[in-house]
Amino acid sequence: MRAPERSVELTQVTEWEDGRLRSLQDSLAAEEPLEIRVGGVPFTVTMRTPGHDIELAAGFLLTEGIIQSSDQIAGLRAMTPENGLRSNVVEVELKDTEFDSDSLQRNFFAASSCGICGKASINAIRVRGLKEPDTDFRFDPEVLCRLPETLRSEQAVFSRTGGLHAAALFDSSGQLLALREDIGRHNAVDKVAGWALLQNKLPLSRHVMLVSGRGGFEIVQKALAAGIPILASVSAPSSLAVKLARELRLTLVGFLRGRRFVIYSSEFRCVCARDAR
Amino acid sequence: MRAPERSVELTQVTEWEDGRLRSLQDSLAAEEPLEIRVGGVPFTVTMRTPGHDIELAAGFLLTEGIIQSSDQIAGLRAMTPENGLRSNVVEVELKDTEFDSDSLQRNFFAASSCGICGKASINAIRVRGLKEPDTDFRFDPEVLCRLPETLRSEQAVFSRTGGLHAAALFDSSGQLLALREDIGRHNAVDKVAGWALLQNKLPLSRHVMLVSGRGGFEIVQKALAAGIPILASVSAPSSLAVKLARELRLTLVGFLRGRRFVIYSSEFRCVCARDAR
Repeated sequence: MRAPERSVELTQVTEWEDGRLRSLQDSLAAEEPLEIRVGGVPFTVTMRTPGHDIELAAGFLLTEGIIQSSDQIAGLRAMTPENGLRSNVVEVELKDTEFDSDSLQRNFFAASSCGICGKASINAIRVRGLKEPDTDFRFDPEVLCRLPETLRSEQAVFSRTGGLHAAALFDSSGQLLALREDIGRHNAVDKVAGWALLQNKLPLSRHVMLVSGRGGFEIVQKALAAGIPILASVSAPSSLAVKLARELRLTLVGFLRGRRFVIYSSEFRCVCARDAR
Repeated sequence: MRAPERSVELTQVTEWEDGRLRSLQDSLAAEEPLEIRVGGVPFTVTMRTPGHDIELAAGFLLTEGIIQSSDQIAGLRAMTPENGLRSNVVEVELKDTEFDSDSLQRNFFAASSCGICGKASINAIRVRGLKEPDTDFRFDPEVLCRLPETLRSEQAVFSRTGGLHAAALFDSSGQLLALREDIGRHNAVDKVAGWALLQNKLPLSRHVMLVSGRGGFEIVQKALAAGIPILASVSAPSSLAVKLARELRLTLVGFLRGRRFVIYSSEFRCVCARDAR
């Protein structure tokens, strides 16, 4: 898997090592704002790593609860600037939604890598319509342990910049379906969710999502919006992530490293029969 | 330094290790929404680790360019809910500002959408009054190398939860002045900036800030708003962070590990005379 060209930028830097200085070329994770317009009205701006912008926009609308299926997208395109520069705007046309750009826009005014910072009221945090994911789905813990290695070996950009988060989607046998990277954890998840939406694969009821960073509240919320039953991360979840996962019976796995992991909620999905106590 | 009580929550989890299951108690980094109200109007909500909420609110207003000094704060208090639960709302009263929550929300959005390319973003941010930090300040690279160890040894929560970001402020001799942790990188920086604002220490023109995570665009922007000349991180910065740092001559250091670091901009501040080429 090759990194999209725009996701990395080269620059000249100075290295200090033990008192010695040298000039060298370094790869930087690209970060640029993306504006998502709905019906011609600026809706939100997110700082993202360029690449897969269409998926990011579609996934954002899904995981923030604006749309539930790809049928509600009447049009979706990256606007090409007349000056031939990079496009940092995606235009979306919606149908069959109760979308009201005025009232929604007010709720998203704070541009931030935090997916919900902009919502102007604590009550508005929960994305409407989140449901319990498939309770019949089971996943082999031995296979689960192998997913981080797959993620690492497929990460095209991370090894060069050290600055990107990844989200990966696996099917029920542990096969990698999609991997997306971004400087923002939420964006990586939105890109994967958007990919699934545009491929008409929703809900992702027999799938596992693995994220490279921490399993925070918004990541759990976004996974639930896509119907994902098992969300795993190599790091620690937050208290609110665990609360939401427990309330909606999503299987939340943390510290997935080597042959060990910690299950924070709904362990029944990734405990083999022979493991059961 | 002890962790504030609310920053950690204990919970019962299941550990899977090599096919064996056991139940154990785990510490989670607390994450809850904080609503910041200005003049009684909800202004923003951020997901944060409870603790130092007043500093967080003050720092957010500073680093987002709403206020420039503590004189502009007429009132600042955490609202205590009648039900005796935790307060997740901070109320701010401002004076001597052109604050108008309606237009501010619009401007805040506009400032970040801003024509939507890195250059335009940077221009929009300069309009907000960001200035070049002190160009006379120098910092010993040998001392710089020791800061991460100080940060780690002082981090009260990180070792218990594995889930918190930290921002630390050091004076010109490398003495630790303030350390704040949060589940959000931006919040940790805002808490430190708010501490400095409320202590009347602004601008932080003879100081170094060290962040545990990545040096992204918004972190550079927030450091500049507090007047900080040197921003260091143990990880990689983004392309836009480097662009902004170069344009406003902030010294941006990355990969500060052991006796090595990489300087992305304005290296003159942390290169000893004897190191100069």
